Amino acid sequence: MLGVFQTSQKLRTSLRLLSRAGLPPVDLQVQLLLRGRSPLSATFSRKLHLGPDGPASSPAAAPRRLPFSRVTVEDLTFFRKTLPGRAITDPDLVQSSNEDWLKSVRGSSEVLLRPQTTQEVSQILSYCHSRNLAVNPQGGNTGLVGGSVPVYDEIILSTSLMNSILSFDKISGILTCQAGCVLENLSLYLEERDYIMPLDLGAKGSCQIGGNVATNAGGLRLLRYGSLHGTVLGLEVVLADGQVLDCLSTLRKDNTGYDLKQLFIGSEGTLGVITAVSILCPRKPKSVNVVFLGCETFDQLLKTFQLCKGMLGEILSAFEFLDSECMRLLNTHLKLANPISDCPFYIVIETSGSDSDHDSQKLHNFLEEAMTSLLVTDGTVATEESKIKTLWSMRERVTEALTHDGFTYKYDISLPVERIYQLVTDMREHLGKRARSVVGYGHVGDGNLHLNVTSPAKDPALLASIEPFIYEWTAKFQGSISAEHGLGLKKRNYIYYSKSRPAVAVMGKMKTLLDPKGILNPYKTLPDDLNPASHTQDHSKRAGRKGELC
Amino acid sequence: MLGVFQTSQKLRTSLRLLSRAGLPPVDLQVQLLLRGRSPLSATFSRKLHLGPDGPASSPAAAPRRLPFSRVTVEDLTFFRKTLPGRAITDPDLVQSSNEDWLKSVRGSSEVLLRPQTTQEVSQILSYCHSRNLAVNPQGGNTGLVGGSVPVYDEIILSTSLMNSILSFDKISGILTCQAGCVLENLSLYLEERDYIMPLDLGAKGSCQIGGNVATNAGGLRLLRYGSLHGTVLGLEVVLADGQVLDCLSTLRKDNTGYDLKQLFIGSEGTLGVITAVSILCPRKPKSVNVVFLGCETFDQLLKTFQLCKGMLGEILSAFEFLDSECMRLLNTHLKLANPISDCPFYIVIETSGSDSDHDSQKLHNFLEEAMTSLLVTDGTVATEESKIKTLWSMRERVTEALTHDGFTYKYDISLPVERIYQLVTDMREHLGKRARSVVGYGHVGDGNLHLNVTSPAKDPALLASIEPFIYEWTAKFQGSISAEHGLGLKKRNYIYYSKSRPAVAVMGKMKTLLDPKGILNPYKTLPDDLNPASHTQDHSKRAGRKGELC
Repeated sequence: MLGVFQTSQKLRTSLRLLSRAGLPPVDLQVQLLLRGRSPLSATFSRKLHLGPDGPASSPAAAPRRLPFSRVTVEDLTFFRKTLPGRAITDPDLVQSSNEDWLKSVRGSSEVLLRPQTTQEVSQILSYCHSRNLAVNPQGGNTGLVGGSVPVYDEIILSTSLMNSILSFDKISGILTCQAGCVLENLSLYLEERDYIMPLDLGAKGSCQIGGNVATNAGGLRLLRYGSLHGTVLGLEVVLADGQVLDCLSTLRKDNTGYDLKQLFIGSEGTLGVITAVSILCPRKPKSVNVVFLGCETFDQLLKTFQLCKGMLGEILSAFEFLDSECMRLLNTHLKLANPISDCPFYIVIETSGSDSDHDSQKLHNFLEEAMTSLLVTDGTVATEESKIKTLWSMRERVTEALTHDGFTYKYDISLPVERIYQLVTDMREHLGKRARSVVGYGHVGDGNLHLNVTSPAKDPALLASIEPFIYEWTAKFQGSISAEHGLGLKKRNYIYYSKSRPAVAVMGKMKTLLDPKGILNPYKTLPDDLNPASHTQDHSKRAGRKGELC
Repeated sequence: MLGVFQTSQKLRTSLRLLSRAGLPPVDLQVQLLLRGRSPLSATFSRKLHLGPDGPASSPAAAPRRLPFSRVTVEDLTFFRKTLPGRAITDPDLVQSSNEDWLKSVRGSSEVLLRPQTTQEVSQILSYCHSRNLAVNPQGGNTGLVGGSVPVYDEIILSTSLMNSILSFDKISGILTCQAGCVLENLSLYLEERDYIMPLDLGAKGSCQIGGNVATNAGGLRLLRYGSLHGTVLGLEVVLADGQVLDCLSTLRKDNTGYDLKQLFIGSEGTLGVITAVSILCPRKPKSVNVVFLGCETFDQLLKTFQLCKGMLGEILSAFEFLDSECMRLLNTHLKLANPISDCPFYIVIETSGSDSDHDSQKLHNFLEEAMTSLLVTDGTVATEESKIKTLWSMRERVTEALTHDGFTYKYDISLPVERIYQLVTDMREHLGKRARSVVGYGHVGDGNLHLNVTSPAKDPALLASIEPFIYEWTAKFQGSISAEHGLGLKKRNYIYYSKSRPAVAVMGKMKTLLDPKGILNPYKTLPDDLNPASHTQDHSKRAGRKGELC
């Protein structure tokens, strides 16, 4: 225990020295601190890259490295024996798992473990727990809040090779599979069997179902099929100490004791590693239509949503929007042509149902009403798959267009639906010419706004204008500062804008209960002072930082 | 601590003496034990009535009274001051809250508290926590597993006066209300606003939304709108120590930290007292149809279900069944006439949608296909409300018919859908002439069977033939021994048939974390050895008992 504390003391002293030396605090040369300790090649540059979130004093910056053990030669021997050929230490191979896909956060892990079975995950965690080694569970690494990559030298535990489908019941539509199955592969498997996955998102080609569940992914079908808290029927989870928690029920109803699996849905790998999932899948719709509409005002867009809910009813499966700024970026950066005339707001509506004649008629009636009542000014309908994809890409490729527009500050906000665009307008006015673009798009049906701000380059002053303004605005209207992206590394210290102190305190107790050493995905989801591994450290600085938030 | 232990010792000694005196162990004269302690009227006969579950050695029997404090005159003074006119001690008034509606379990509480606000609940629990007084949270008292009434002298905390609707958002359909709102009242309120509740059950006239959430009620609409884990958006909960946990979000999406509210859904009042609920409500369907069909075999019934899912698709809102034995009881005891010709199996299908012409046509096509392919032999359709109610009553009044058939042993089992009737057949064969009736009905769409066995009177020998046979059968096919009723008092010790030991151990830790003294709804949900308040006691007997289960 004393040894651990000494390490931490030494680390803190070194950090202070670096800081005094004027080195950029966002790009700490952690390598210096590790010299002489690592059993691995010294050629791999270990850097902690804190991403776009500004100075180290920001609540989004990484906390100090907690006093976990360092990986030793003996540890590597164990991993290589447990996972023959699948304990990766080649820096080139580990590198892509150290960095998130936005290239905004980079860890310095030197070990990537690729188990194939639950038993292997259990052995690894049991070992890491006994050795006090921190672990970063990783699925498809498509997260947007720095939750899926290590912050320091955490061992990366990838579920990519755990990609087997375990069972599918054609009568009930219940699929059971390992956590590493890629969402799109599951969709293709199910479509051949006349079913679909109850969730769909832009990252489907890379994201894994285990990661989807661990982050409680929302996506495009939530409006119709609800959240994963309703559709996930069972989970198998390996706890921090290696114990396997078998809650892999394939039943729609089971009221025997507390529904433990719920706790792991959305816990971002901090409470356990999800190794298998059972999920209820809907029948594949026989008919799908997509409509792309234009509106003059956001108020008209909301009225269109109301009309749509009433007239399309049970066949409505998505109601998404983007603003004219998004369209400009799609035109400019991706050369995507606007399929209708220019409007301030665009809507993508999807219907899916069991009878194409009925669906077409409902859609026709709705469109007629929306046009004659002047709620929408222009529109186009697609029933063929290729045209459906084209229309959907106008919504799905906004994220990609943004990456070409400069440095992007991304926000994912839940609000009462009538408020969601007001935040974009207020932010645009608030930032004025300091931002290159301020764009709004998202899931109207779920009250979920994606607000993005771009600038020519990383701009701490601009960031300081955005935050905490956006969080305070959101809190004022009882919104959520993370609707579907989670908190990860970047937003962990902003939790108090959306959750009460007693609630966060209970979360901390849950974490301590299930992961007493705090080895699972440290520095993520919970605010810094609640990590069990931080309890041996001096909290005064962090307490002060938290105080600024509330 | 010593004082508590001494009380417990004394209690155990007294119980042993009673037992040696040959008094019936299922009807303990707890009054004797309390003599001289209670501040209340001695005229109220305090009995512990353990219900239909046989001898005290059964895992369903109540455990020993745990060493909670007894209510004193000072306690009553506090309650009366905190809840003027709403701290009830009149035995006649307390009596109905001591007994469940099946009249199978009776407690001996002498205090019924009726708070109106969350603040009052908080004050009561804070006080009870400090005084180590056990509390039985109670909603509409419509539970079927002895979870809603005290076992010994727990203070009854009724939510009946917490019946205000707090807000309703017409755009999003999100309702927020106090926990004591009666489900039917909420339905009526919403129907006037063109919405419905996402759940519906037979007890709707009495059951309260807080109790529905606390027990994760399923009911008739689960097939369409999913479980409460998906539709409940927020909860306000008062913890055992009186702390108010505000998770009363009204957002469809919120991924900021762990989703704590999920833990309270289905925890049967053992982790906290739910004081307010926000829930996502669907639009009121414009068209509702109900069909009553007859099938020759259960296999044909399942094929009809498959056909129905494909052809009715998104408008299917319920698929229920009853067998010919249920029909016999409906005819005999309630004089309800069979609306179609006699068949071995009957199906109730409900559709609800946004266009009556489309719905009728889908239903017509389905019925034509089901008849021509000889899946169903007879049927009738209802579109008018009165006839819809008549057809639904054939399914909803089976429970009532059973109460007239004799003493009823009730089971609520989840199984893979293709297995559900096999259990009824096997049970009928297994029991032979020892049972008066063995009937099966339930929610085919959810794989949820209600199996009921009746006998002329309470019959311990018959019970011994049913249990553990039924639980072992269910466990063999990875079913749940309680699909929607919960575990309550009666089934708490059977939990291991459906949950693994590591999972139950984690549940015990959650209980200890949130309710360290175990004052909330003791003797319920978790097996006896996991109640935090039992940790000071001798476990040897219970450990032996549990050993029999697994």
